[in-house]
Amino acid sequence: MSEDRPAAYLRFERSEYDTRLKNVRSAMAQRGIDTLVLTDPCNLYYLSGYDAWSFYTPQYLVVRQADAPVWVGRGIDRKSARITSWLADDDIIAYPDDYVQAADKHPAQPLCALLAERGWDKGVLGLEASNYYLTALASDIIRAETPNAQVVDASLLVNWVRLIKSPAEVEYMRKAAQIVQGAMTVATQGARPGVQENELAGDIYRALIAGTDGAGGTYTSSPPFMPSGDWVDTPHLSWRNQPYGNDVQVNFELMACHHRYHVPMSRTVWIGTPPPAVRDLESIAVEALNAALDAVKPGARLYEVEAAWQSVARPRGVSKTSRCGYPIGIAYPPTLGELTASIRPGDETVLQPGMTFHLMPGVWQDGASIVITEAFHVTENGAERFCSFPQRLVVND
Amino acid sequence: MSEDRPAAYLRFERSEYDTRLKNVRSAMAQRGIDTLVLTDPCNLYYLSGYDAWSFYTPQYLVVRQADAPVWVGRGIDRKSARITSWLADDDIIAYPDDYVQAADKHPAQPLCALLAERGWDKGVLGLEASNYYLTALASDIIRAETPNAQVVDASLLVNWVRLIKSPAEVEYMRKAAQIVQGAMTVATQGARPGVQENELAGDIYRALIAGTDGAGGTYTSSPPFMPSGDWVDTPHLSWRNQPYGNDVQVNFELMACHHRYHVPMSRTVWIGTPPPAVRDLESIAVEALNAALDAVKPGARLYEVEAAWQSVARPRGVSKTSRCGYPIGIAYPPTLGELTASIRPGDETVLQPGMTFHLMPGVWQDGASIVITEAFHVTENGAERFCSFPQRLVVND
Repeated sequence: MSEDRPAAYLRFERSEYDTRLKNVRSAMAQRGIDTLVLTDPCNLYYLSGYDAWSFYTPQYLVVRQADAPVWVGRGIDRKSARITSWLADDDIIAYPDDYVQAADKHPAQPLCALLAERGWDKGVLGLEASNYYLTALASDIIRAETPNAQVVDASLLVNWVRLIKSPAEVEYMRKAAQIVQGAMTVATQGARPGVQENELAGDIYRALIAGTDGAGGTYTSSPPFMPSGDWVDTPHLSWRNQPYGNDVQVNFELMACHHRYHVPMSRTVWIGTPPPAVRDLESIAVEALNAALDAVKPGARLYEVEAAWQSVARPRGVSKTSRCGYPIGIAYPPTLGELTASIRPGDETVLQPGMTFHLMPGVWQDGASIVITEAFHVTENGAERFCSFPQRLVVND
Repeated sequence: MSEDRPAAYLRFERSEYDTRLKNVRSAMAQRGIDTLVLTDPCNLYYLSGYDAWSFYTPQYLVVRQADAPVWVGRGIDRKSARITSWLADDDIIAYPDDYVQAADKHPAQPLCALLAERGWDKGVLGLEASNYYLTALASDIIRAETPNAQVVDASLLVNWVRLIKSPAEVEYMRKAAQIVQGAMTVATQGARPGVQENELAGDIYRALIAGTDGAGGTYTSSPPFMPSGDWVDTPHLSWRNQPYGNDVQVNFELMACHHRYHVPMSRTVWIGTPPPAVRDLESIAVEALNAALDAVKPGARLYEVEAAWQSVARPRGVSKTSRCGYPIGIAYPPTLGELTASIRPGDETVLQPGMTFHLMPGVWQDGASIVITEAFHVTENGAERFCSFPQRLVVND
């Protein structure tokens, strides 16, 4: 390449990427995988630094033991790869634009041509078969065009490596925590009678994106969730184009992102005077949350954290139908979680320093609900909360 | 079901959904498809009304000729389906939460159990194999568990039906156009020396989400793109956490969403005094854009619209490496376009009243660029622009 390389924009020291790659190669060796073709944009970012909203067209990162990783993507994104990744120019391979959304060809074809050209189309080939950005069609093409390879499902192989964060990653999450606290302040102060839900959503977005001094925000993996009133138990509906009334509950589930690292937080606001049942739930939720946080220490297992939560909640008649939490870190749309461990019964994952989770038990009793959650970081001394937002029901009366 | 049905929130008359379903069934019959399993959230919304940020876990809409459509999704989203869709309660089928992100089971299994139970697991079964929300793993499971069916790729079958909009759909797009004009005003007025890019991005988000009087916004399929300075030719990078300087170009590519209907608009801002080359490009871009708009009429073909653009641009030395535009309407992350027709050479699609497009020729000459785009609606009288934002380079000096 004779062209000048644009200014680099790497988010981590080069040595940190070396460590990540070493850990992924070790996991590949354990699974007997010769060639790993990644499509999850989180995993592309984690290993190469590549970061752009380009995942709606196919793009791949090819990882092998003794060869440098190779990015294969769209021509108009090549410069983004040169800016955001540490990869050598010769390992940034672009396919022509007429492969984009075409009926008669697919970007998996130039990928397979590259594999063949370099002799990487044999041995064990791992794909991320449960990732959003490897479609069924792409998987079929890759399997058909690599007849000498044994194709296996390597979903979540890199995600499991991501479970333990470095100090630099935790530092980015602390910035995201600052941002989400600012946005939650806007949300909890703004939810008042007569305020339009979409206006408040706009204010929350502004806080999430503008960020705070020294910590700018960027787009998150999911929008703010803020169901209210008769929608309060529909977790995936967004705001409405109508004003808040009186005696209305709003559950805010927000997340902020700094350099792709996410920290979420949820709080319930009651507009008016909360009924006694909700006040009761508040005290149970806060006590159970802290019992779970107290159970976090290196060597403990995730199911024990869930059990600590249950030991407070169950005797007081509170039920919970889904898991208590999940690991957090890098995310792109459409989802926040890392998709590996879960804070739920049966999960034997051993807690280690550097792991980061969102503890978010949905608390329900006789149709009443409350959300008070904490993102935390596992240290030698136990759970360190990312946020310091009051653990209480917010009442705007 | 004995439970009360929550208040409905349908965005269209029931008769409009009937028409859509009739058109899709007709396309299925032409292709010999007995059972269509949809995963594209745009297509779920189009046919059933279902609208929630729940597509990060598998969900399906099953469509057949003589049976009512059936939604299969996660238990916690069942109420959202009852609120947002017209489907009968008995046709809203939830799978248990332990199917979510589990290593040992997958939501495609309860889907296949339903198909078997109703005798729908034979004949020709269509899947959306190139959709983001049908993973390779899910496709493999469905094929394995329906051994008596002939599985075919029915990608874009519904998308092609969506190409022609009803007056009610166009009306929603007019609302989205109002919103995007407001946001573009914020963007073009705000890009000034010393302003932090992330602060301006926050202001733009606020305008997109809060919306305008009578037209609230909601989350869009993609974030605002606003590359600047040395990043101006990297279309998929987002804002930076730094202030704008002097003599800097910013390309704003924004989109707004009202009830899932999107209208995009792009404009270039020059902070400082634009060089003569950019002024030249401006005049070429505006003239070519309007030549293309003038070529729009019922009966014309899409390649002719592109040719009209080229007839102005090519003699003046302007090159273009990708297509001139694409159909717009319903969108969810990660992409705006409908993925069917393209305004490019060779596309024989015949223009008809009710079609809606984004005409967005990227204009490049010797490293200089400009973006001035128009979303339009095909009427009996030709192209009707959705927006009335000045077609010019914005100069903030």
